[in-house]
Amino acid sequence: MNRLAVTEKIITAKVAKGIQWADVARKVGQSKEWTTALCLGQMTATPEQAKAVGKIFGLTAEEQKWLQVVPYKGSLPTAVPTDPLIYRWYEIVNVYGATIKELIHEEFGDGIMSAIDFSMDIARQPDPKGDRVNVVLSGKFLPYKTY
Amino acid sequence: MNRLAVTEKIITAKVAKGIQWADVARKVGQSKEWTTALCLGQMTATPEQAKAVGKIFGLTAEEQKWLQVVPYKGSLPTAVPTDPLIYRWYEIVNVYGATIKELIHEEFGDGIMSAIDFSMDIARQPDPKGDRVNVVLSGKFLPYKTY
Amino acid sequence: MNRLAVTEKIITAKVAKGIQWADVARKVGQSKEWTTALCLGQMTATPEQAKAVGKIFGLTAEEQKWLQVVPYKGSLPTAVPTDPLIYRWYEIVNVYGATIKELIHEEFGDGIMSAIDFSMDIARQPDPKGDRVNVVLSGKFLPYKTY
Amino acid sequence: MNRLAVTEKIITAKVAKGIQWADVARKVGQSKEWTTALCLGQMTATPEQAKAVGKIFGLTAEEQKWLQVVPYKGSLPTAVPTDPLIYRWYEIVNVYGATIKELIHEEFGDGIMSAIDFSMDIARQPDPKGDRVNVVLSGKFLPYKTY
Amino acid sequence: MNRLAVTEKIITAKVAKGIQWADVARKVGQSKEWTTALCLGQMTATPEQAKAVGKIFGLTAEEQKWLQVVPYKGSLPTAVPTDPLIYRWYEIVNVYGATIKELIHEEFGDGIMSAIDFSMDIARQPDPKGDRVNVVLSGKFLPYKTY
Amino acid sequence: MNRLAVTEKIITAKVAKGIQWADVARKVGQSKEWTTALCLGQMTATPEQAKAVGKIFGLTAEEQKWLQVVPYKGSLPTAVPTDPLIYRWYEIVNVYGATIKELIHEEFGDGIMSAIDFSMDIARQPDPKGDRVNVVLSGKFLPYKTY
Amino acid sequence: MNRLAVTEKIITAKVAKGIQWADVARKVGQSKEWTTALCLGQMTATPEQAKAVGKIFGLTAEEQKWLQVVPYKGSLPTAVPTDPLIYRWYEIVNVYGATIKELIHEEFGDGIMSAIDFSMDIARQPDPKGDRVNVVLSGKFLPYKTY
Amino acid sequence: MNRLAVTEKIITAKVAKGIQWADVARKVGQSKEWTTALCLGQMTATPEQAKAVGKIFGLTAEEQKWLQVVPYKGSLPTAVPTDPLIYRWYEIVNVYGATIKELIHEEFGDGIMSAIDFSMDIARQPDPKGDRVNVVLSGKFLPYKTY
Amino acid sequence: MNRLAVTEKIITAKVAKGIQWADVARKVGQSKEWTTALCLGQMTATPEQAKAVGKIFGLTAEEQKWLQVVPYKGSLPTAVPTDPLIYRWYEIVNVYGATIKELIHEEFGDGIMSAIDFSMDIARQPDPKGDRVNVVLSGKFLPYKTY
Amino acid sequence: MNRLAVTEKIITAKVAKGIQWADVARKVGQSKEWTTALCLGQMTATPEQAKAVGKIFGLTAEEQKWLQVVPYKGSLPTAVPTDPLIYRWYEIVNVYGATIKELIHEEFGDGIMSAIDFSMDIARQPDPKGDRVNVVLSGKFLPYKTY
Repeated sequence: MNRLAVTEKIITAKVAKGIQWADVARKVGQSKEWTTALCLGQMTATPEQAKAVGKIFGLTAEEQKWLQVVPYKGSLPTAVPTDPLIYRWYEIVNVYGATIKELIHEEFGDGIMSAIDFSMDIARQPDPKGDRVNVVLSGKFLPYKTY
Repeated sequence: MNRLAVTEKIITAKVAKGIQWADVARKVGQSKEWTTALCLGQMTATPEQAKAVGKIFGLTAEEQKWLQVVPYKGSLPTAVPTDPLIYRWYEIVNVYGATIKELIHEEFGDGIMSAIDFSMDIARQPDPKGDRVNVVLSGKFLPYKTY
Repeated sequence: MNRLAVTEKIITAKVAKGIQWADVARKVGQSKEWTTALCLGQMTATPEQAKAVGKIFGLTAEEQKWLQVVPYKGSLPTAVPTDPLIYRWYEIVNVYGATIKELIHEEFGDGIMSAIDFSMDIARQPDPKGDRVNVVLSGKFLPYKTY
Repeated sequence: MNRLAVTEKIITAKVAKGIQWADVARKVGQSKEWTTALCLGQMTATPEQAKAVGKIFGLTAEEQKWLQVVPYKGSLPTAVPTDPLIYRWYEIVNVYGATIKELIHEEFGDGIMSAIDFSMDIARQPDPKGDRVNVVLSGKFLPYKTY
Repeated sequence: MNRLAVTEKIITAKVAKGIQWADVARKVGQSKEWTTALCLGQMTATPEQAKAVGKIFGLTAEEQKWLQVVPYKGSLPTAVPTDPLIYRWYEIVNVYGATIKELIHEEFGDGIMSAIDFSMDIARQPDPKGDRVNVVLSGKFLPYKTY
Repeated sequence: MNRLAVTEKIITAKVAKGIQWADVARKVGQSKEWTTALCLGQMTATPEQAKAVGKIFGLTAEEQKWLQVVPYKGSLPTAVPTDPLIYRWYEIVNVYGATIKELIHEEFGDGIMSAIDFSMDIARQPDPKGDRVNVVLSGKFLPYKTY
Repeated sequence: MNRLAVTEKIITAKVAKGIQWADVARKVGQSKEWTTALCLGQMTATPEQAKAVGKIFGLTAEEQKWLQVVPYKGSLPTAVPTDPLIYRWYEIVNVYGATIKELIHEEFGDGIMSAIDFSMDIARQPDPKGDRVNVVLSGKFLPYKTY
Repeated sequence: MNRLAVTEKIITAKVAKGIQWADVARKVGQSKEWTTALCLGQMTATPEQAKAVGKIFGLTAEEQKWLQVVPYKGSLPTAVPTDPLIYRWYEIVNVYGATIKELIHEEFGDGIMSAIDFSMDIARQPDPKGDRVNVVLSGKFLPYKTY
Repeated sequence: MNRLAVTEKIITAKVAKGIQWADVARKVGQSKEWTTALCLGQMTATPEQAKAVGKIFGLTAEEQKWLQVVPYKGSLPTAVPTDPLIYRWYEIVNVYGATIKELIHEEFGDGIMSAIDFSMDIARQPDPKGDRVNVVLSGKFLPYKTY
Repeated sequence: MNRLAVTEKIITAKVAKGIQWADVARKVGQSKEWTTALCLGQMTATPEQAKAVGKIFGLTAEEQKWLQVVPYKGSLPTAVPTDPLIYRWYEIVNVYGATIKELIHEEFGDGIMSAIDFSMDIARQPDPKGDRVNVVLSGKFLPYKTY
């Protein structure tokens, strides 16, 4: 058994039972973004969170233990994603990467925006010309230090 | 002459004169995100915008014309970026890619978040535990159509 | 269970029963292009479409549910396709890519031809020197916006 | 001197003088698609065509000779294109590749759609919901032979 | 079931029964080159050819149907082949590629040698200094057309 | 100075003066295939051959010496060639690779067809349905030895 | 002008004058590890540090400004390094990567060891069986957060 | 059976029973770093070490034999690791690679730091601003020899 | 069944029974280098050799037949090997490749050292400063021919 | 100036003056293998060796200093070499890699054959059936240590 098997069991149950990620998140008591990442094998649960997820998807005690093991992260099968939705995000990094770098450095100096002390919020923004996906990313700025 | 040469001239002038992207944006009359992307060779200027940029960085008339030509986009030298700041964004796509896909589809159905009808806003969010980089991405949702 | 397993079941049934994509499309009520892409795991069905496909290929209720889940898209095993028919399309992108870019920009300005709000029609065009494959691609033009 | 140098001279002159590909095509007497591909270093000119192109862009006699030499074709800097417009075409091959293969084989049997005995026509299709890019591809079907 | 499974069954039977490709070809009524390519999953059989192959290798009716489905072609596991015999052919393309291109263009102008309307004949050529492999490749020349 | 510079000088002179490879071969006294490969930087000349080539293309004494130095071979810019003519040869290796391997081993046992003790002859074969490119490859069979 | 040009000027001067990195570090007032990374184009200097470096290597005022610009980081020409010394470090990551991951997670839980709030100390450790390279890496542990 | 199967059995048992690497190391009588690498399939055990590991994880006699076979080393699924913790180590090699090379050569001359005669110690370093991961790497310096 | 399955069976039996390659070689009557390569799926056996190998490892008659089939060669899972022992050989090719090329050409002219008419002998060379691995490679020189 | 420029100057002088590596080695007082690797930018010279090389090839004092700087090693332009002579060595690693690994481990246990404490000797071995290239590789065995 491994984490991947648990992820696949979760996804199979989700489709069979028609479960929504937002509902899972409510029961786990975290945001839908973090909870979905947990269920897809990218995050690590506390025993309580694992139990909540296990109850929803019918996981055994051992499968719940796997949710508490830090996983080998990475959710894409190829370095350049082929799925159009995910590719658009890669394209943003590709087209705007240098811009993002310039503006963060202009504001903060040398360092990075953390992808660990990080949160994400995805929401629908109604718009008469067609609704928009609104995403807020928030990451702590970590300055390079001299030593 | 090509667009890359114009980009390099802009960057060289920026360092030599100590110009700020935010100031360039104010004079061009667009956001600092779009304006920086323009100066880095990713966007296309109107004649007025080209003139404004040209004045700041000392570009010739022909160089200003190049700013009005649609460029071959892509601002990274490798498929997986080596620079730590830009890599963190690639890591977000890698770790959260499947999560983003699930949540947008749960809310909107099959389709993508546009990277064309798209805007980005990067701002400092003061925080006593260390300031944060706050980024708002907004892209129109485009549904796949049957036919 | 996952979408790939459903796709493989569909293809196996198609060969065993000698089913034609054009017939499937008629029963689904969509074009043969979209319907084939659906059956090959690239598009998302409504419950009615899933039922129609399920009846033709003998899918269970759970398998029909998988047809309604947005799939991870991408139908090629390698970045550069090895199959001669598909390679010829990649070659067109490779040889004519810069040309396509120039001409669309000359006509429309900066932006893209959508691959989402998109349709395709493949037809035989009789020709005494050898019949031709005639393909019509239609994609909405999406202009880059300034902000 | 090589073909690439001629291509770059053509592009530089085009930007400086504001030349349109459609105008070049009219003077060369071929379609705008083929003519642009010629100017971008992908096709081979007759002496007359080379002369016409040379006149427009101010090419020397030797540079015109290079237009008559069969070039090493391929207009993209990377196997997977980074430019959003060209990527959308690669995405079409990626998402619809298996579909295209199935439908051409269903209609024609084993073989390919030629990318050599091939033409392309790109046109604007007015649409109240936003104009569309309409592309017609026509390639001779070449059947695999037994021997 | 898929074509790969049929190919593997053929190869397993070939080794177990000590069948020769030349004998298979005689019974199929085609060249040994085409017939071997068919059995290795690269070509498409008529019902009669599939029946002949099926009889030799003990294939079921459904397996014979798979021989009549156009396969996804490509017989090598990596872009640069590791097997020494096949690598030597890749080396020929690598070392002589530009030479082949120059000479075919010098004789025929711009175009390609077809790999579809194509035949190959591999034969032993006795030689006192060590026998030679003699290969004749014949492909129709297809000229690029202007339009 | 290096061999690449000599190759480029040869090609530039060839285009400027309209020289044919077949004529060069006659003066060098070797086949057009070998001679072209020599001029394109893939083979090594004797002093006499270097002198003959040098006379035709106007090479200096030092440049002629470079023709006598064994070059770093490989005439393609990418592992998978992008040029359609050369790609067709790569496609032959890809589609027929396993077939070629099977048939040579069936006839000769384990070993390879040499790409060193090797010759190639490219010729036009008139055909009312369209002329064909006829290529004869001849390589010594080298058996693997036990020891 | 760009940062790479400044790096190359520094290295050229270092070889010509026989400068030691340890001496540069003393004058800059930082560790030899950070100072060398600065001179090799990976870190960002304060105006004082840039002046100190500029004095040692003879840099102009504009070149000193480039030392104060955040660089595009990454000091290796290939994803897998070819230089034996650097490869050994890549090998450590490759062979011990999973071990490092397990042990840090066992001690700290889910998170990473920062490569930004990070320092490195390289020293000679005398040993009668052959001196050893002793390296101390120190990075702040950053825990993944739930949200 | 192979080493990978033994590794997977060890990991499955570890999660199910909640075993700590540090405990395993104590029973094996080696450091936790080496012992973890052994259990993850990177090192080779003596019969006694294999027996100790086997007892903890419930391995059969044959599985214990596999621990004594030198494994094919390499613990990462991709050349550039996707897991954020391991990537940070790759980033250190990427950003500091040239620096490490310069400083070791400045101190020791041409040669490498061994990754074979090598040890690693990972420890928690308490810090009021957030605990740090402290890693000591020690490798014998091996000088290149002339001959 | 295929050759890989036979190789895995051989390796499994080798570990379970503690068989030495040198002993296998003695019974097969060939060198340990060739015999090991045979057992690892890289060489082709005569019926007698296959029988000898089969007796040692308990192979069935059909498995012995597979040893007599020319295999698809290549014993490494990635283009750049990750295992440290094998990598050192790749490093030798990488660091000394150009040197080897220069010296063989200086001695023999243009051509190659055969990897087919080739033998290898690996032996321990006792040395008070630490034993050495001594490897003798012997390959026939094959000159490029003009034609 | 950099080491690559020195290497190119050496090679240019070698061709122009017809210098032999064996003669250079005699004057440097080292083996022809090491000396050639030095001249090709892979090894590091003492001041005396640099002077000797400098005298032969006409290097300036600064260029001689570059020979004394440890270079970034790696002499091949691609991960898989395209040159036939060098490829044969890569093929040996590819085909015999697992064999070499098995036999060295069988004789020595876990560890590697050093590529640093290493020497190579390339010699002609006369043979009536065609002379052979005889290569002796000698590397110290370095055992993995437990700790």
